[in-house]
Parts: sequence; C-alpha cells; structure tokens
Amino acid sequence: MASIALGVDVGGTFAKIAAVSPDGKILRLDEMPTDAGDGAKPFVGRLLRLLQIWRKQGIRPSALGLGLAGDVDHEHGCLRLTPNLPGWQGFCFRDAFKRALRLPAVVENDANAAVWGAYATELKRRPRHVIGVTLGTGVGGGLIVDGRLHRGATGTAGEIGHARVAMSGARCHCGARGCLEAYAGKYGIVRTARELLRARPDSGAVLRRLVPNLKALSPKCLKAAADQGDPIAREVWRRTGTVLGWGLANVVIVFNPDVLVFLGGVSRAGNWILDPVRRVFHEHPFGTSLRHVTLRCAVNPNGGCVGAALLALEDRSGR
Amino acid sequence: MASIALGVDVGGTFAKIAAVSPDGKILRLDEMPTDAGDGAKPFVGRLLRLLQIWRKQGIRPSALGLGLAGDVDHEHGCLRLTPNLPGWQGFCFRDAFKRALRLPAVVENDANAAVWGAYATELKRRPRHVIGVTLGTGVGGGLIVDGRLHRGATGTAGEIGHARVAMSGARCHCGARGCLEAYAGKYGIVRTARELLRARPDSGAVLRRLVPNLKALSPKCLKAAADQGDPIAREVWRRTGTVLGWGLANVVIVFNPDVLVFLGGVSRAGNWILDPVRRVFHEHPFGTSLRHVTLRCAVNPNGGCVGAALLALEDRSGR
Repeated sequence: MASIALGVDVGGTFAKIAAVSPDGKILRLDEMPTDAGDGAKPFVGRLLRLLQIWRKQGIRPSALGLGLAGDVDHEHGCLRLTPNLPGWQGFCFRDAFKRALRLPAVVENDANAAVWGAYATELKRRPRHVIGVTLGTGVGGGLIVDGRLHRGATGTAGEIGHARVAMSGARCHCGARGCLEAYAGKYGIVRTARELLRARPDSGAVLRRLVPNLKALSPKCLKAAADQGDPIAREVWRRTGTVLGWGLANVVIVFNPDVLVFLGGVSRAGNWILDPVRRVFHEHPFGTSLRHVTLRCAVNPNGGCVGAALLALEDRSGR
Repeated sequence: MASIALGVDVGGTFAKIAAVSPDGKILRLDEMPTDAGDGAKPFVGRLLRLLQIWRKQGIRPSALGLGLAGDVDHEHGCLRLTPNLPGWQGFCFRDAFKRALRLPAVVENDANAAVWGAYATELKRRPRHVIGVTLGTGVGGGLIVDGRLHRGATGTAGEIGHARVAMSGARCHCGARGCLEAYAGKYGIVRTARELLRARPDSGAVLRRLVPNLKALSPKCLKAAADQGDPIAREVWRRTGTVLGWGLANVVIVFNPDVLVFLGGVSRAGNWILDPVRRVFHEHPFGTSLRHVTLRCAVNPNGGCVGAALLALEDRSGR
C-alpha cells in the first residue's frame, strides 16, 4: 500500500475520512460527527484516535489532506475565517497533524478539494481549464487553470457563491445582498419555493403532498416533485437555474473554461439545473466562451475526501 | 539590436507600430490609419511597406506581435469575430506575416496584449496573479495567472466588459443588457452624464462651460470638470466607479488576484475611478480577496504595442 493518502472532508455536522489511492480510489471510508462546538483541537484528537485504529489495521498513509468549509490559509495550513465551524478560526491544522502523525498535511478549502476530486477522477480527459461549482447549503467553487488548482493570492479563489447577481437582492448568509448563494444555496432555493407556494395557493399539489410540513422543504423533495411534473417545483428550478446561469455566465466570460462541473448535494437535481443554465448561456449574445463550455454534474458524493487526499499526494511530490 | 520585436496595436481608427526591446523599451514608434473598411489584406500590405522602410533603417526584428480588438483565435493566429473591424473576420494574420516577412507572428486580443504590456513593464515586482481592465470605448481585460497570460480555452478569456451587473439594465454594444461596458465604457459614461445634466438643469456649471455642445461630452472633459469641483462630473465618476466596483468585486472574489490594474484612456481619470471601486470593495462583507487586492492605474499609453511585442518574443522562445 505505497503512497496512499488520507482525505478528510469536514462539514458543519459530519466529517468524512477516506484512505485514497493515487488514482483516486477510496480504499476505506469512515464518518464521525464534527461536533464543531467542542473546538478544533478535540476534533483533531478524535480524528487521530480513529487513524490509530486504521494504522493498526495496516493503513499507513504518506500524507493527509483536509478540506475545511471556510477561508483557508493554504500556505500556513490554518483556517483563517469560517462561519460554519465556530471557534475553529486561526487553528493551524498542518502543524497539529505534523506533530501528532509526523505526516505532511495539506489544508484546503472544502470546495477546492471537492473540485479537485471531481477533476481528477470524473473528468477523464483532464481538460485544461475548469470551473467547479459546489451546490449545497452554500454555493462555492474552485478553478482549475492549465490542469492545476488555482488557489489565488490568498488561497481564497473560487468563491463563486459570493459573486453578486443583483445589487439589492436577497440577503446572503455572508451579510451582502444579491450573492449567487442567496438564490442557489439550499436556503435560497427553499425560500423561492415557499414564496411560490404562498403566491400560488391552487398550484403545486404534488409538492404539497410530498412535503406536508413546509419546514421540511428541501432540494431533494423539489427534485422529486419536479420529476413528477409539479409546476411549482419546476418553476423553482427554472428560477434557480436562471440566476445560476446569470452568475456563472459572468465567470465563464472572464475565465473561458473548457468544462463547468457542478458538485454537491443540490447538483443531483441534474437537468433541472443544467437546462436553465444552458438556456441563459445560449441567449447571451457575447458568444464564444459560453458556446464552448461543456456543462456537467459530478456524481461521486465523496469527491471532497478524494480531492483533499490527492492534493496532499501532489503537494508531497513537490508539484 | 538582437531580439527586438515588433508590436502592432490595431484600433478601429489608428494602428500603432512599435519596435520593442526585450525589456519593454520602445525603440521606435509609428502610427498609421487602420482604414478598416478596405479590409485586412490591404492593411497588412501597408504595414509591410512601413516595415520595409524600417528594415532599411536597420530595424531587424525577430518576431511580430499583433493586438486586435476582437475575439482572436490565438492558436491559429486568426481573427474570429470583431464588431470594430468590419470585414476582417476570419483573416489569418499569422500566416500572412509568416509568408511576407518570414517572421513568427503572434496574434492576440488587444486587451490581453495591453494587460501583458502593463504587467511586464509597470508592475515591477511581477505579482503572481493580476487582473487588467482596459477602459476605453469598450471595457476589456486580461488575466495573469502565476505570471502567465491566461488565454482560456478558446483565447477569449478576460472579457470583463461583458460580465453583467444588472440583468435588465442598460443596453451594451454586444446586444445584451446590463454588461459592465454599458456603464463603464465611454458611451456608458457619457450616457450617465447626459442623463444627470438633463435631470439637474441647475447644476453642473463647470461641466456645461467646458462642454457647451453636449455631443462633445467625453471622459476627458468629465475628469477636468471633476477636478474643478463640478458636482455632476463627480457624480458621474461616483456612479461609474460604483458599477465598476460591483462588476470587478465579482471577478476579484472568484479569481483572488494580487493586483487589479486599470489601463486605457478612461483610466486617466485615476482616483475618480479608483476611490468608488475601493469603497465598494471595502463595503462587501465577503472580505479576504477584496481587502488583499492592490488597485493601480497603468500610465504607458503604448502598453498595447509593448505587450504584443513581448508576447511575440516569449512565444518565439517557446515559453
């Protein structure tokens, strides 16, 4: 088992831990609660205990990659800012892992890690320039330039969710108005659905049947309702995809990628998202970039772990 | 005179031709009318005659770079699409120059060339990641990633002027609504000024005195009037810079550059542009990228020629 790496994808509720081979295969996968409220150090302690068990079972990794939801200082391996992991700010994971495991560790923004995972394992032809967009509670992303992850000047590149599509629009979790995330993040999608259900009391029978309690509205039920022909659910996706198309058209026009790949739970809506985005791209008169780009949805739900592990291997090999 | 290159910057009205040393110094500069209506072939013929005269005078370049306003196929050296050079579409400049001059030629989007010129000669520390924004009749741009020009998948990257800031806003020359260019291109700025002069008949005395005929309104007079304290001129810059700030904040958040540099005639407005852009960047709650980036205005008005020439030298040396 030469050269395997550990990839850890830390979400607000759960953390996934995977042992990953250099070609991106998951050899072992485990999950543990993040318990973010306890702080970063106890989390690292629990992770180390799990890895000790793995070691005893023969898993001897050569590097560790950690994907974190927040603004990551990749160079120093610290978490700079995060709204989702309260109290973890400023913690230097790289040093902690180096001390405890004697392993080189790479700390990466979770969206960057997930985009790299999708790039390395799902885009087999390895296109040169790729935009990845993570659709979940929030909207994030990552850029691949010339086959390499573009971290930007401060490791903050790819924050597509906070590009604004309306200057006085819906309120985003970041505090600004009109961010893409405020429309295409889970909470934005659910808000659109609630507004439509309220405005059209005689419509949306399927959706109302699937979700008797509107507090349980989710992208998953909205996909199911849309699949069953529900007009409100379909309208929700049309609006979500249209706003997503506006925001992403701007990024595509400036960055001119070969592929735009959607990842994350909400991307399972598939064509309900892709179709309106494609329509917006084709309606824009400013053409070459928008006609060239191929739209895709990634399928591996563990791409974040895989990407973090592969980035750790690359970093170790000095790439 | 080893290794000098020719740089040609083709505008809609005039073309500038420069002989450029590898360190970006202009050794000779000439200008000729573009006469775009005659077609691309006669333009190349006239350019060749000029270069023959230069050759006789001892200027023996080793490469030629051509900057063209339009969608350029860098790989094949052709002009794919252009609204400004009617009839030039599809012309393959690289082949034409290779045949006639036996020189390797590089064909580049004019904004990309200008951004590269500013990067190579005005940003002495060569920051890693840079966004250049050309402010003129139109709004264009270019990206430098890791010290290299990012051309994108089809050579169309950097078209910042056609990123949209309002989905049902002012009409852009490209046909879309709400493009950044429709507000921050010369015609957008002049439109804003006219609207304000009409809406506030008792204000703007200095501007009205400087430009008795409103058809002659230009960014240049608006800068002069703003310098003299004219409230309408200042409001025009405030609005222009604010919209520019909205559009560019999106690009900065996604791309995370070290430096954002403005180029082109309108950038001579200097702080009248920079101040409102800075304000927008600092008001956005999504911070790291927007706080990190340094704003600059380039000063060399011939950066387009210099950049085209330097790109040709780099290409020749196989970089």
